[in-house]
Amino acid sequence: MKLNIAVLPGDGIGPEVTAQAVKALKAIAVEFNHIFTFETGLVGAAAIEKTGDPLPEETIRICENADAILFGAIGDTKYDNDPNAEIRPEQGLLGIRKVLDLYTNIRPVIAYEDLLNKSSLKKKQIKDTNILIYRELTSGIYFGEKKMGDDKASDICEYTRFEIERIAHLAFKAAQSRKHKLALVDKSNVLASSRLWRKVVQELAPQYPDVKLDCLYIDNAAMELIINPRQFDVILTENMFGDILSEEASVIVGSIGLLASASTGDKHAMFEPIHGAYTKAANKGIANPIASILSAAMLLDHFELHEEADLIRDGVDKSLKLHITTPDLNTKYEHITTTKVGDFIEDFINNPDETNLN
Amino acid sequence: MKLNIAVLPGDGIGPEVTAQAVKALKAIAVEFNHIFTFETGLVGAAAIEKTGDPLPEETIRICENADAILFGAIGDTKYDNDPNAEIRPEQGLLGIRKVLDLYTNIRPVIAYEDLLNKSSLKKKQIKDTNILIYRELTSGIYFGEKKMGDDKASDICEYTRFEIERIAHLAFKAAQSRKHKLALVDKSNVLASSRLWRKVVQELAPQYPDVKLDCLYIDNAAMELIINPRQFDVILTENMFGDILSEEASVIVGSIGLLASASTGDKHAMFEPIHGAYTKAANKGIANPIASILSAAMLLDHFELHEEADLIRDGVDKSLKLHITTPDLNTKYEHITTTKVGDFIEDFINNPDETNLN
Ligand SMILES: CC(C)[C@H](C(=O)O)[C@@H](O)C(=O)O
Ligand SMILES: CC(C)[C@H](C(=O)O)[C@@H](O)C(=O)O
Repeated sequence: MKLNIAVLPGDGIGPEVTAQAVKALKAIAVEFNHIFTFETGLVGAAAIEKTGDPLPEETIRICENADAILFGAIGDTKYDNDPNAEIRPEQGLLGIRKVLDLYTNIRPVIAYEDLLNKSSLKKKQIKDTNILIYRELTSGIYFGEKKMGDDKASDICEYTRFEIERIAHLAFKAAQSRKHKLALVDKSNVLASSRLWRKVVQELAPQYPDVKLDCLYIDNAAMELIINPRQFDVILTENMFGDILSEEASVIVGSIGLLASASTGDKHAMFEPIHGAYTKAANKGIANPIASILSAAMLLDHFELHEEADLIRDGVDKSLKLHITTPDLNTKYEHITTTKVGDFIEDFINNPDETNLN
Repeated sequence: MKLNIAVLPGDGIGPEVTAQAVKALKAIAVEFNHIFTFETGLVGAAAIEKTGDPLPEETIRICENADAILFGAIGDTKYDNDPNAEIRPEQGLLGIRKVLDLYTNIRPVIAYEDLLNKSSLKKKQIKDTNILIYRELTSGIYFGEKKMGDDKASDICEYTRFEIERIAHLAFKAAQSRKHKLALVDKSNVLASSRLWRKVVQELAPQYPDVKLDCLYIDNAAMELIINPRQFDVILTENMFGDILSEEASVIVGSIGLLASASTGDKHAMFEPIHGAYTKAANKGIANPIASILSAAMLLDHFELHEEADLIRDGVDKSLKLHITTPDLNTKYEHITTTKVGDFIEDFINNPDETNLN
C-alpha cells in the first residue's frame, strides 16, 4: 500500500516521540512492502516562532493532501503563563481538527497486564479494564464564540443534533463490536447542550437494540471511572468532558505516556498521543514514545493494515514486559531513553522472533 | 448561642441523612446549652410534586430568615431520564445558591487514617491527603443563558472579574492558614473565561507573597488528583470544574458518602453533602449519613463553634474506627443502618467518654 503521511511534530516532546513513531512506520513499510512517504509540517508554538501563525497555510495544504496525519504534541509554558496572549499554540491543533472536520476522537484505555503495578489504583480495581472513549472533537465549548475582555469573558457551548448523531452512531457501532455497552456522559441536569445530547442519543438507541445504553453525569463518571473502570465498554461524550475523562483515565493505564488516539472525520484522519508537550521534559530523552508509536498503530488499523498494527503493538508489549521503557514506567534499568525504546520496537518489527534483552 | 436553622431535606436519600445531622445538632445544643431551632422547607423533586415549583417562595423565605441552611440532596431518576422536562429538581438547588448568593463552595477532601484501605487508590498514594477545594458556585456555565431547541442547544459560560476576585481572595487566605499552596484549575489554553480566571488570579497573587500559586489545566488536574493528591493544599476553580474534581476526589476518601461542603456568601451559608439523591438507595437505611453530619459540623464551625464541631468530628472518627458505618464502608458488621450510625454519633456527643461498641 502507498501512504502519504503528514507529520506534525509540534512542540516540546512532540518531535522526539514522533520520530520514534516514524521509525516504527518505516520499519513496517520495509517488512510488509508498503510505500510510506512522510511530509513534515509546522504547527503550534514552533510554527508561531517561525511564521507567526500556529497553523500556517502550508501545513493545512500538507494535511489535506495526506492520506493520514501523525501529530506530536502542542503547547508551551511561555503561553500557558500568559493569559493575555492572543495567538496560542493550541489554536494550531484546534484549527486542524476543525479544518479537516475530525469530529471523532477515539481514545482506548487498556490496562496492560505488565503494568498493573504502575497504576495509582489497586491492581484488582483495574485488571482487565478495556474502555474506548468516543470524544466529540470539533464542537462544544472549544469552538463556540469566545469573548475576552478585561473584566468579563465568556465561551459558548453549542451542539447541533447533526453533530451529536454522527458520532453517536459510530459509538453505538463500536459498542456492537465489543461488549454491547455504551455510556453517555453529560451534565443534562444542568446544561441545555447536555440535554440535547441525552435526547438525541436516547432517540437513536432503539436502532441499536443489542447495545445497553447508560447515561451518567460527568461528575459521577469522573468518580466511577476510578472506583469501577471495568463497568465501562464504550464511553461517548462531548468535547470538554472527553478531554477531562480521557486524561483522568490515564491513571488506570499507569502513565499518560501510553495513551494513543485517533481523530477521524469522513475525509481525513489524524493520530495523536493524548499527552501534551511537556516543555520541561523536552530534549532530555525521557519522554515516553509509546503513545506516539501506538498512535502509528492506530493509523495502520485505519487502513485495515491490522497485521502491521498488531506487530507494532506486540513490540510495545514486549518492551513493557522487558522493562525497556522510559523513566515514567521504569524502575528497573536506568538510562533507557526515548530513542532506545524506539530502537527496540524498530528492531522487534524487523525481527519479531529474535528481539531480546541485550 | 441561638441559631435558627433551615432544613431542606430534598429528594432521595436527602431526608434520611439530614435527619441524622439534625439529631447531632440537637444533641450538641443540649450539651453546650445552645438554642437551635429548625424550620423545614420543600425543595427539588419533592417540591415539584407538592407545588409544581422546585423552589417555592415559602422555601426562599425560610432560608432568607435562617442563620444557616442544612441541605440534603436533590434529583430524581424520573427527571434524569427525561431530557425534555422543562421543570427540574436541580433548579431548586441552583436557585437557592443564586438567590442567596452562595458563591463559595468549600469541599474538604481528607484521607481518614482508618479508611485508607477503602479507597480504590493505593494506601501510600493517599495517606495524609488534605485538600480544600474552593469551587465557585453561582456563575459559569451553570448560570449563563441557555437555549434548548429540537436541533440545537447551547449554554454560555461567563465570568466577571468581580466573581473571580471575591472567591480567589478567600482561597488565597485559606492557603495562608494552611500549607501556603494554591492550585488554580482552569482550561485557559482553550477557554476565554479560563484565561480571565488565570489573569485575575495571577494579578492577585502578589498580595499573597507567602502563597505559592500553581496553575493547572483541568484535564491535567483530573489526572494529578489521583496520581499525587498530596501535592495539593487549596484548589481554586470555576463551577463546572469544581463539580467534577470534587466528586472525583471522593475516591481518595473512600466513599462519596463522607464528603461534606459549605456553600457560603456574604450574608448566607448553606451546608450540604456533595453526594446526590440516589433515588434507588432511598428508604432502605443504607445511605451514609456522615457527609450530612460533617456538613452540620461545618455549620457549627461557621459560627465559630469549633469545640462543638470537633465533638461531632470526633464522633464520626470513632464511628469509622469502630466500623459503625453503612454498607458503602462496612465489611465487618451487617445491618448498620443510616439511623444506627446517627444514633451512635448522637450517643457519642451525649457521652463522649463512654460510647463504645455495644
Ligand atoms: C492541547 C489541548 C488543546 C488539547 C485539548 O484540550 O483537546 C489536549 O488536551 C488534548 O486532549 O488533545
Ligand atoms: C445536583 C447538581 C446540580 C449539583 C451540581 O452540579 O452542582 C451537584 O452535583 C453538586 O455538586 O452539588
